[in-house]
Amino acid sequence: MKMHLKVLLPALFLATVLRADPLPSWNPGPSKQSVIDFVAKVTDASSEDYVPVAERIAVFDNDGTLWCETPVPPQVNFAAHEVKRLLPEHPEWKEDPFVQALLKGDFAALGDDHHKGLINIISKSHADRSPEDFAAAVTEWLATAKHPKFNRPYNETIYQPMLEVLLFLRDHGFKTYIVSGGGQDFMRVFAWDTYGIIPEQIIGSYSQVKYQTKDGKPTLTKTLENLFVDDKNGKPEAIYRFIGRQPIACFGNSDGDQAMLEYTTLANPHPSLGLIVHHTDAEREYAYDAKPIASGQLVTGLPAAEKYGWTVVDMKQDWKTVYPE
Amino acid sequence: MKMHLKVLLPALFLATVLRADPLPSWNPGPSKQSVIDFVAKVTDASSEDYVPVAERIAVFDNDGTLWCETPVPPQVNFAAHEVKRLLPEHPEWKEDPFVQALLKGDFAALGDDHHKGLINIISKSHADRSPEDFAAAVTEWLATAKHPKFNRPYNETIYQPMLEVLLFLRDHGFKTYIVSGGGQDFMRVFAWDTYGIIPEQIIGSYSQVKYQTKDGKPTLTKTLENLFVDDKNGKPEAIYRFIGRQPIACFGNSDGDQAMLEYTTLANPHPSLGLIVHHTDAEREYAYDAKPIASGQLVTGLPAAEKYGWTVVDMKQDWKTVYPE
Repeated sequence: MKMHLKVLLPALFLATVLRADPLPSWNPGPSKQSVIDFVAKVTDASSEDYVPVAERIAVFDNDGTLWCETPVPPQVNFAAHEVKRLLPEHPEWKEDPFVQALLKGDFAALGDDHHKGLINIISKSHADRSPEDFAAAVTEWLATAKHPKFNRPYNETIYQPMLEVLLFLRDHGFKTYIVSGGGQDFMRVFAWDTYGIIPEQIIGSYSQVKYQTKDGKPTLTKTLENLFVDDKNGKPEAIYRFIGRQPIACFGNSDGDQAMLEYTTLANPHPSLGLIVHHTDAEREYAYDAKPIASGQLVTGLPAAEKYGWTVVDMKQDWKTVYPE
Repeated sequence: MKMHLKVLLPALFLATVLRADPLPSWNPGPSKQSVIDFVAKVTDASSEDYVPVAERIAVFDNDGTLWCETPVPPQVNFAAHEVKRLLPEHPEWKEDPFVQALLKGDFAALGDDHHKGLINIISKSHADRSPEDFAAAVTEWLATAKHPKFNRPYNETIYQPMLEVLLFLRDHGFKTYIVSGGGQDFMRVFAWDTYGIIPEQIIGSYSQVKYQTKDGKPTLTKTLENLFVDDKNGKPEAIYRFIGRQPIACFGNSDGDQAMLEYTTLANPHPSLGLIVHHTDAEREYAYDAKPIASGQLVTGLPAAEKYGWTVVDMKQDWKTVYPE
């Protein structure tokens, strides 16, 4: 068969574009392929699996899924930094066993009831201040603090392969959300620059803010009241409240993400993708599942992944690089 | 000066486009002009008032701002309809004075503490059911119920001039949100079709939903717990929680919108627009401010509008038409 050049050239160009690797930091294999195949399927207008752009919603856990959560989630380090900095103004905090543990650097002491403990202690350094004041403190901390193992700022201990997934999905009309146990206000400070995710697409744990007008100026104040913990069942509950419908793709790394993985992938009228990042790389990052240092236990999630056909990423095998650069 | 036709034609075309009236249902005057001037200003890349697309957030109250709230907000009629329909399953409701008032059609009896009373009574017919079941009930009600004065479905007692504002803003890169005392789940059922506003951009009053897995199927159940009333100070608080930053345009009609009008227009680093729909048209709609029938009291909002330079729309003077068609 003979083709004219003007027909062939666009075809070659198209083939090149289609061949271009959207996930260059992923090694070839079933994990990478599952993401590529899913996106190809739901964006093919001629397929019965096609999903309209407006329904292409993807949700991502943050700690352990988009950035490193070990030895402790970075927000705990921020809280420790802030508690030390603000302690002179709050002498009563010295009586609090959680504050005492933090000041000793004894993060393991928060481990027993870790999510509640962590979030409560974090709240202490996050309340009775304006969002602007809080955001300035997070920004200052991010500019100076460094990860103890990798000696780089926490907003650079983010996973390059997952950044590529975020971009790949957005390039195909997906709206990408964070749905994390981490503080909503905390993540909103850096997520736009770091992940390209705007504030209204950041869902996390939060307490009430209070509005009042002071000297003719509207002000908001962060409080500790009505704490909502965006973990486990809280994740699908928050997705319903903030987004109002079922995502079609969900990315997590721990048992805390299992409920939202189920909510995304079971009884969904659209095709769906569930993916778990399994931390198997003790050298380049950390290796943990049943026994994490502080956060990210993965026990029931693995058999659930097997049962429901979720992709389990083997960090050591599947990721060519871990961090950017 | 002589211009070649190929230069002149695009210029004429551009002038025609620029002259095309984006708000055809508005009579000429300062109200209409304030909206047009604001949009021109913040979208002019050469102006120091320019606002990047990502910051173009506009918030709209619903009851009395986008649709008719008189004689009672339509959601109250839905609640009455549902309470009657579900009463056989909940005989205990008969003891409730609010239910008794509803069944008698005595909406005025809910007036004293109206927002709390209305929302509580609404909650009764909204809880202990799945979002899907609830949405189906709203859809069925919308298809059959009619407004007592206008004899048209409630999703057609919407204000044509405000639909044009929604479109005009979206055509200029604005993200349009509803921020209403009405039920978030209730509005999400029809707002996409009716206003072109997707579920994640609907903020309203809400209670907790609970997630659980039943027979391997994820389910959510609406409850009455942790009611959040999205009115007065709750509006800026919800805007912060759901959107995470200050809007630059705010549209309301009652004192319940005053806090979010202040939050939008005071101490905003960007130019901003505040607008109040004043119900002055007893013939084509209703005339009320200090003494509404059930909802939409406007007393402190009028001097605040004067003080802060918000646009006050005189419905009778400023709107050429009220409802679509």
